[in-house]
Amino acid sequence: MKFICEKNSLQEAVSTAQKAVTGKSNMAVLEGLLIIASNNEITIIGSDKDLSIETKIKAEIIEEGSIVVDSKLFGEIIRKMPNYQIELSKDINGNSLEITCKKSKAIVKCMNEEDYPSLPYIEDNININISQGVIKNMIKGTIFSVAQDEIRPILMGVLLEIKNNKINFVALDGLRLALRYENIDSDKDISVVIPGKTLNEISKILSDTNDIVNITFTQNQVLFNLGNTKIISRLLEGEYIKYNSIIPYDHKLKVIVKKDEILESIERASLVARETDNNFVKLDMVDDLIVITSNSQLGNVREEVNAIMQGEEIHIAFNSKYLIDVLKNLDEEEIIMELTSSISPCILKNKQNDNSIYLVLPVRFLNA
Amino acid sequence: MKFICEKNSLQEAVSTAQKAVTGKSNMAVLEGLLIIASNNEITIIGSDKDLSIETKIKAEIIEEGSIVVDSKLFGEIIRKMPNYQIELSKDINGNSLEITCKKSKAIVKCMNEEDYPSLPYIEDNININISQGVIKNMIKGTIFSVAQDEIRPILMGVLLEIKNNKINFVALDGLRLALRYENIDSDKDISVVIPGKTLNEISKILSDTNDIVNITFTQNQVLFNLGNTKIISRLLEGEYIKYNSIIPYDHKLKVIVKKDEILESIERASLVARETDNNFVKLDMVDDLIVITSNSQLGNVREEVNAIMQGEEIHIAFNSKYLIDVLKNLDEEEIIMELTSSISPCILKNKQNDNSIYLVLPVRFLNA
Repeated sequence: MKFICEKNSLQEAVSTAQKAVTGKSNMAVLEGLLIIASNNEITIIGSDKDLSIETKIKAEIIEEGSIVVDSKLFGEIIRKMPNYQIELSKDINGNSLEITCKKSKAIVKCMNEEDYPSLPYIEDNININISQGVIKNMIKGTIFSVAQDEIRPILMGVLLEIKNNKINFVALDGLRLALRYENIDSDKDISVVIPGKTLNEISKILSDTNDIVNITFTQNQVLFNLGNTKIISRLLEGEYIKYNSIIPYDHKLKVIVKKDEILESIERASLVARETDNNFVKLDMVDDLIVITSNSQLGNVREEVNAIMQGEEIHIAFNSKYLIDVLKNLDEEEIIMELTSSISPCILKNKQNDNSIYLVLPVRFLNA
Repeated sequence: MKFICEKNSLQEAVSTAQKAVTGKSNMAVLEGLLIIASNNEITIIGSDKDLSIETKIKAEIIEEGSIVVDSKLFGEIIRKMPNYQIELSKDINGNSLEITCKKSKAIVKCMNEEDYPSLPYIEDNININISQGVIKNMIKGTIFSVAQDEIRPILMGVLLEIKNNKINFVALDGLRLALRYENIDSDKDISVVIPGKTLNEISKILSDTNDIVNITFTQNQVLFNLGNTKIISRLLEGEYIKYNSIIPYDHKLKVIVKKDEILESIERASLVARETDNNFVKLDMVDDLIVITSNSQLGNVREEVNAIMQGEEIHIAFNSKYLIDVLKNLDEEEIIMELTSSISPCILKNKQNDNSIYLVLPVRFLNA
């Protein structure tokens, strides 16, 4: 194997493929990157057991072939090379990779290529086309609600659901739920659960643009095809919670409030709230005024935020962390909160655009 | 105590005084900031056993007085407050501080003010005036060479020495030395050793400008007076090493080389060097060419850097970390290396400006 390519495009490709190399696999070879030179392009592949990333760049191939090298060391060497053409070649014995760039030469031991697992076969069955920016945004807007503990493994993933010409992303743990949806032109019904960790890496590779990503679904895998880059993630097994039955479609109080004002007030109140006490903050919603209070042995905070209220007065308390997470993911100047009682879930959403629904369970308190 | 001031100037003053609050003291009250309101200004003081910082800002004093509050919590509350006028007042019982800003009110428990130690008395004995930017730069250019282990405590400080109308900063551990000097108009001889840790905090407060800092020296303390801010550091006891006898003033090879080229080459070579092997890299200096090599079980790197050489050829090896530290602190395009043999220290300095001298000891190697 021997080829010449541009240092910058090689560095970018390595950085993309490395996102699948977690070092947490128990197969040593998965700490490597597989590099394949053929047909005037090189393919770089990184994998762990849940995620595989394959990316291609143009190169001048002098001799076809392939090699596996340590991902971290190879990536660092490429990154530190001067910004010129770079030559990579496997030595005669097939034991090492020689990297030459101007007057620099590095020789890196290679790993056993035969041990490198082949990528999962993806049957081109059901697939959709959608903008990368839209998917990236839907991931960002839900992934923070994925369960962090392994009590119910299915909740450590994000539900991707297509039905009735809508694509939904849903994440929930025991105390909150995030739902984002967009219109899509698809007559197929799909329901898969993608691990939160792989989705997080996928969102780093997706661009903020309207460039298309083609998503293919199989029984056990999902493939995100960006053109030069393909990302394959394992799916989580099992049935997801019927989230629709959790979301209340009725309420007794509707509150319209400026997002930045309530966010900053809750952030200040949370400064004296304690994690051991569920980051407890109380919201008294009466007569177009939200009074936010918190107290602990450190001190106490009282905040007033003006709002427009329709309905009954409500006194309710939350884990401030959950409210802050949601408020940071709403992007309009004004937001809506819908409440029913001090022990019922609270709905939060943008005032105009209805493509996000967030739900946060309250924390019980004495003397409500 | 009751006063009104601007949120932004209060936040900046708190951030300055907090640099002395390390949380490592065994006196609980030193996790607090002392706030004193009198004479149309407020003074904020932070301290640990080695460092005290006092800073003043203008305020509208309604009632004079003082209070001690937890540094971290108070700092976070001030930082999160809206950018308006802010009112601080001690409650009637003297148990807490009430912070009011627009519609936000926070009440923070206060600490026992009587336990707060008084600042060391600084007799205005010997003092000098010098530009803050110059001192900041001298600290940055030497502090990385301070010893990190406590085997010889005096080496955990930087020697500040004034003699013959020069001010010298010197730091050394067993394997390298950093010396920076500037001209100064002073007829006094001074030699003190300032702890590296406090000097690091001091450099964060000094500006990059030509604003003057007045430095006062006493037996046990040094005071940096910036006008509104005063910083007092404990001095280290004991005699510093006679560093002049370590620096060779003769050499057998002088090398002139582009700094970025040799720095980047050594950085690449260090990628396969191992910490367990002293980050060993070898430099062969022959016929205007520096060949840099390193190897380990990971692989090997060979780099060529052109240079202008005067004198004998030399083959020498170093801990690459030490060379990289020095090269990053030299700021000219071309630098000079002066060498005598493979077992003698190497001198590094800027080609033009002679106000920096760095010395790095070589690492021994077989088959020299």
